[in-house]
Amino acid sequence: MFIGYGEAETFLRNCEDAVIITHQSPDGDCIGAGFGLKEILSELGIRSRVVCSDEFPHRYDFLTNVGAGEDFEPKTVIAVDIADTKLMGGYKDIYGDRVQLCIDHHESNKNYAEKTLLRPKAAAACEIIYDLAKFMGVEINRHCAMCLYTGIATDSGCFRYDCTTPRAHEIAAEMKRSYDINFARINRYMFEVKSRGRMLLEAKFAGLMEEYLGGRLVIAAVTQEMMGNLGVSFDEFEGLAPMTIQLENTEVGILMKEREPGVFRCSFRSADSVNVSDICHILGGGGHAKAAGCTVEGNLESAKRKLIDAVAGVIS
Amino acid sequence: MFIGYGEAETFLRNCEDAVIITHQSPDGDCIGAGFGLKEILSELGIRSRVVCSDEFPHRYDFLTNVGAGEDFEPKTVIAVDIADTKLMGGYKDIYGDRVQLCIDHHESNKNYAEKTLLRPKAAAACEIIYDLAKFMGVEINRHCAMCLYTGIATDSGCFRYDCTTPRAHEIAAEMKRSYDINFARINRYMFEVKSRGRMLLEAKFAGLMEEYLGGRLVIAAVTQEMMGNLGVSFDEFEGLAPMTIQLENTEVGILMKEREPGVFRCSFRSADSVNVSDICHILGGGGHAKAAGCTVEGNLESAKRKLIDAVAGVIS
Repeated sequence: MFIGYGEAETFLRNCEDAVIITHQSPDGDCIGAGFGLKEILSELGIRSRVVCSDEFPHRYDFLTNVGAGEDFEPKTVIAVDIADTKLMGGYKDIYGDRVQLCIDHHESNKNYAEKTLLRPKAAAACEIIYDLAKFMGVEINRHCAMCLYTGIATDSGCFRYDCTTPRAHEIAAEMKRSYDINFARINRYMFEVKSRGRMLLEAKFAGLMEEYLGGRLVIAAVTQEMMGNLGVSFDEFEGLAPMTIQLENTEVGILMKEREPGVFRCSFRSADSVNVSDICHILGGGGHAKAAGCTVEGNLESAKRKLIDAVAGVIS
Repeated sequence: MFIGYGEAETFLRNCEDAVIITHQSPDGDCIGAGFGLKEILSELGIRSRVVCSDEFPHRYDFLTNVGAGEDFEPKTVIAVDIADTKLMGGYKDIYGDRVQLCIDHHESNKNYAEKTLLRPKAAAACEIIYDLAKFMGVEINRHCAMCLYTGIATDSGCFRYDCTTPRAHEIAAEMKRSYDINFARINRYMFEVKSRGRMLLEAKFAGLMEEYLGGRLVIAAVTQEMMGNLGVSFDEFEGLAPMTIQLENTEVGILMKEREPGVFRCSFRSADSVNVSDICHILGGGGHAKAAGCTVEGNLESAKRKLIDAVAGVIS
């Protein structure tokens, strides 16, 4: 059942011993939402604990170092930023069928919870939680503000992407007026800092980018042999797909990773107006308008040809 | 003389045939401020023309393609985002001593104009011009909003840097509520797009970064010989200094460029709390807390040693 702020307030004010579930491969928004909500419940005198099937990445230590929460048998189950119980990883079997409240901003939300506070236009789950706290008149402490800012900033690409709402900017303005927080330091850790290995990997990756269709399409293909030669694993290429649309005239960028011999996992990115979800759909995949994916089989050349043909059919 | 919004309004409402000067090596803020102010003057029925001693870079075409303005003998001289007349380049001799109104956000402004509307805390000159237009009750048209957004976004590093004011966020929110503008496209062109040459240069540059003082200092040195081998010019290293503080533990980053044999131009960047202006001052240079510069002479090793010693004296 979809609910509004009023019902969410009633629920939160009356809950006890809450476990807050974040999604697998946790990002700034679900971590910020989880730990931010934990602070809000704490203001209400309610114990809570933030859980995740994966470890929280090291760079979010400044949010998670307050501790995930006390150990207790939960009486309340809350999910944040989770559109589908399968994104709970190992926690799906434990809590998947008994989530009482879900707070989410994904249009694709499966409505799996008893009550769902869904705001599909919000830039981040953290934007919804900030507005909910304001609605409830609960004080947002400094740590909570850091959590919620981080979620909004990371999901909006530091206010760069389409999804950046006016409200996201207003909340950032309110926070900058109210809290003594080193926002620039948070942004540096979220958007600039990288390991030396990552920096060198990006440097190598730049050399893999090939232009097709007069530069409107860029493909960067990584075969198993190349990964061996580069000395990097399949997983290390996570997050490199956005580099494929950095060149000026590129409309569509594709990162092809050979997952197993002759099977390429392809991540599509759209620079602007091309809907790559449509293209991936043709190829048996799916996703969003600006970020989508599919799997293509064949040798490198034939797989590439399938991708080029599919893109050419849409953009030319 | 420093003035407020009221006096600036009186001046603008009563001026005629204005030339608007932007600074040399023009960036998003001075271009946005120049072309934004031109739109505002146009709303008031006043002719104006935007001038610059250098060509406007191609990526600002979406702002400048309305044309710089009509050709006339100027009766009014306005400078935007210019702290010192020497930044006018070739226009210093023509207009440097007869600027009637300067609109600027640099604390270092030399107060060279008859009247100066200075807001040193503003994130951008465009933030001041937006607030001035609101103060005056002049309509900000869509193109003007694009100009002013671009200036605010570029000078604040898309809302990432310390200098990002609450007001900068509020203005972005107001614009997103009021105008049908593809902000994500502007951000892509300002912050993501690069040429293939630049991408490959960055890739090569990543390999030049050396860590000192346990990784707290990074130095990337480019000698004349290396520039020859890389096939790039001194100027092409513009804008690479921020890469020197991308590694996680780096506090200070230095880009050394051998301008002539044995003479290194050094660009310092601070990741967070170290004041690199203080360090550069010791070495005979200067600048801002987070970005400063100096010139050091000697062979590569001795020049590097001077830099390492100076930094060690401050951060250890």
